[in-house]
Amino acid sequence: MSLDVPPGYRALKEADVAAYLAEIPAVATNLGGQPAEWKIREVGDGNLNFVFVIEGPRGGVVLKQALPYLRLVGESWPLPLRRSFFEYQALVVQAKAAPQHVPKLFHFDETLALTVMDYLNPHIILRKGLIRGTVYPKLADHMATFMAETLFATSDLGQPAAEKKKHMALFCDNIELCRITEDLVFTDPWRVADGNRWTSPQLDFTAAAVRTDGPWKRAAQELKLKFLSEAQALIHGDLHSGSIMVTESETYAIDPEFAFYGPMGFDVGALLGNLYLAYFSQSGHETMPGSRDSYRDWILKTIESIWTLFDERFRALWNNAHAGDVLAPALFLNNQEPLALKAAQDAYMRRLFVDALGFAGAKMTRRILGLAHVEDLESIVDPDLRARCEKRALKLARLLMVEGGGFTDIKAVNDAARATQREAVR
Amino acid sequence: MSLDVPPGYRALKEADVAAYLAEIPAVATNLGGQPAEWKIREVGDGNLNFVFVIEGPRGGVVLKQALPYLRLVGESWPLPLRRSFFEYQALVVQAKAAPQHVPKLFHFDETLALTVMDYLNPHIILRKGLIRGTVYPKLADHMATFMAETLFATSDLGQPAAEKKKHMALFCDNIELCRITEDLVFTDPWRVADGNRWTSPQLDFTAAAVRTDGPWKRAAQELKLKFLSEAQALIHGDLHSGSIMVTESETYAIDPEFAFYGPMGFDVGALLGNLYLAYFSQSGHETMPGSRDSYRDWILKTIESIWTLFDERFRALWNNAHAGDVLAPALFLNNQEPLALKAAQDAYMRRLFVDALGFAGAKMTRRILGLAHVEDLESIVDPDLRARCEKRALKLARLLMVEGGGFTDIKAVNDAARATQREAVR
Repeated sequence: MSLDVPPGYRALKEADVAAYLAEIPAVATNLGGQPAEWKIREVGDGNLNFVFVIEGPRGGVVLKQALPYLRLVGESWPLPLRRSFFEYQALVVQAKAAPQHVPKLFHFDETLALTVMDYLNPHIILRKGLIRGTVYPKLADHMATFMAETLFATSDLGQPAAEKKKHMALFCDNIELCRITEDLVFTDPWRVADGNRWTSPQLDFTAAAVRTDGPWKRAAQELKLKFLSEAQALIHGDLHSGSIMVTESETYAIDPEFAFYGPMGFDVGALLGNLYLAYFSQSGHETMPGSRDSYRDWILKTIESIWTLFDERFRALWNNAHAGDVLAPALFLNNQEPLALKAAQDAYMRRLFVDALGFAGAKMTRRILGLAHVEDLESIVDPDLRARCEKRALKLARLLMVEGGGFTDIKAVNDAARATQREAVR
Repeated sequence: MSLDVPPGYRALKEADVAAYLAEIPAVATNLGGQPAEWKIREVGDGNLNFVFVIEGPRGGVVLKQALPYLRLVGESWPLPLRRSFFEYQALVVQAKAAPQHVPKLFHFDETLALTVMDYLNPHIILRKGLIRGTVYPKLADHMATFMAETLFATSDLGQPAAEKKKHMALFCDNIELCRITEDLVFTDPWRVADGNRWTSPQLDFTAAAVRTDGPWKRAAQELKLKFLSEAQALIHGDLHSGSIMVTESETYAIDPEFAFYGPMGFDVGALLGNLYLAYFSQSGHETMPGSRDSYRDWILKTIESIWTLFDERFRALWNNAHAGDVLAPALFLNNQEPLALKAAQDAYMRRLFVDALGFAGAKMTRRILGLAHVEDLESIVDPDLRARCEKRALKLARLLMVEGGGFTDIKAVNDAARATQREAVR
């Protein structure tokens, strides 16, 4: 695969940014003052993009430009610039469904593969807050709302089939980014693969055992099949704690370049799985044993609230804002029909719950045995301590993937997490 | 919705056909002789198209041209000509997967929305053979092969994700024909709808009861959700006994204009459901009570063989011709992994089986209570006798849709059909 850069594309340098933005009235107005006054810095810690923050006398914006390769790996892993187009398309839809949790979009430039958005300040990446042990009292409420609103609106319950099919056709083309997930999340941790790495030698035996664990591998592949074939709604596609910006009072989901029509449980699972990773990594961030006990409790309480509120809001939208071509409440008004609709809703939410648990487990596993790891665990300096955290996380991950259908509710999952945390690990 | 006819489109008259075909070398060669010698007749008994049969000294072809409206209803129900494009695309893929069961394609004209195919002679429409009581010893074998080969090849087991996504994007646009199925098969029979009709007054009470039967309506809507969101493979989309041409030794699937990426069980269910309709309609075609007993047995034996052979061949393709990105046998070679793959295959085929039963039930129901009926039942002149056949068919249909998950295998379904056939109906 060679670098396929469309005519007109050039990577912006810091020195080009002010002149570029000055030409966009909405951005210039938002920044205020003269271009010479704008402070510009490159802040990208992602793998896929250049990210500039530009601050003017009135306000700030972020300019995010896609690079034609994966930054972490370099030009050996080319990536289509067109992902910027999918990110833009997803942001537009998400902003319509949940405007309070999506950064305001000022500009999209298809040729340069860049978007200009509101600069979120003083928001930080949720993952960093979770490592520090910061409590976000609104997080569960906000993320439940973001997921319920965006997933419902783009599902067959929230839009007519004709609109969904047209929208889906657009996102069918987001092939390469889907491919990254397909390989890295569902396949590589269960086979020998180039990029795989883990805390070694502590996890050598575990990693080898995972690669020949038939039931676990089967579960991973069955989840992959869902990812490949269940076009339930426009999903964010990468909704981990690194794609969420927070303050105590605000929450934004960013970076939806992996968006496509896929299984809703993948978004819910990404968030829950990353919160369980945060939970198990707390032992590595304690200043003394037990000093993060109450924070661990907060994480589990947040997980419980996320699912409970998500379930509640999704059902409320279904009952009050149905706009699709299937399972309309208006079809179920006579005799015992409302009971039948309720039964269908229970079954629907149950499938989504079990899917979410499975996807959570897959996302946890790949962050410990696959190519891309998470700072929650990577920042634990002592490898023995880190490995113990990781083994606990893997234990829950396997349970979620192989026996997810056995959990009656989210409390039962948290009980399993607590039990795993208490166990001694070798 | 107004008639949206692209520039250049014109409906061919019988007098235009020879001149048109003479310009296509492959067709002219196939027909042989001079255009003036070609015998041309219009044979369309479908609703959507003009169909001409053209016979020359050497061979024959069929010219099928899409009309911009539903012929049965007239210009009040416009239909996009582009369905001809989808039919063509589907024929190409099906011919690659199961060439012996797909008519040879000579020509596609996108502007005129027409295809020219091999004239199948002396093949007849399977439905007509089933009404006459003709045994087709190869039918089960051939249709199991057609379905296994076409569905496997276009599933995530038979092609890489990137190819599937590109192909799927194309078919996302087949919106209007999907919409016909969505409305007529899954929704209208369970609500008051303009086109609904049934044997009246005999089925008046039944039809009213169906419209307020909560669990049945729920099952229909849950199947519709699968139809809308489960992009498992490129399905034919209309695989009833009117879309199959047969002789004793040959079988062809025709008319795939409803093709799109949907649930595989919809094709299998369409075929099984229409065979069960044929089964229950036999009482209406008996010259004396019991004279169709052995034919009824043949139909059930055929149903059993179709599923059994389909299951067998689909698994064989999976084990020997896997070419997709998920559940590859090559991933499951160590220790107990082959057992895990076998368990995944069993679960996959089981889901497909239960889906097929549900879709079979929906297709049966709509042919009795919805807009478009089938000749198997319509040709029964005595309305009391016809209504008894229809009530039996509806009874099995409900069972398949609401309790399909309770059937252990296809024999158990046939047992239920036999029991229903034996019961007295009011």
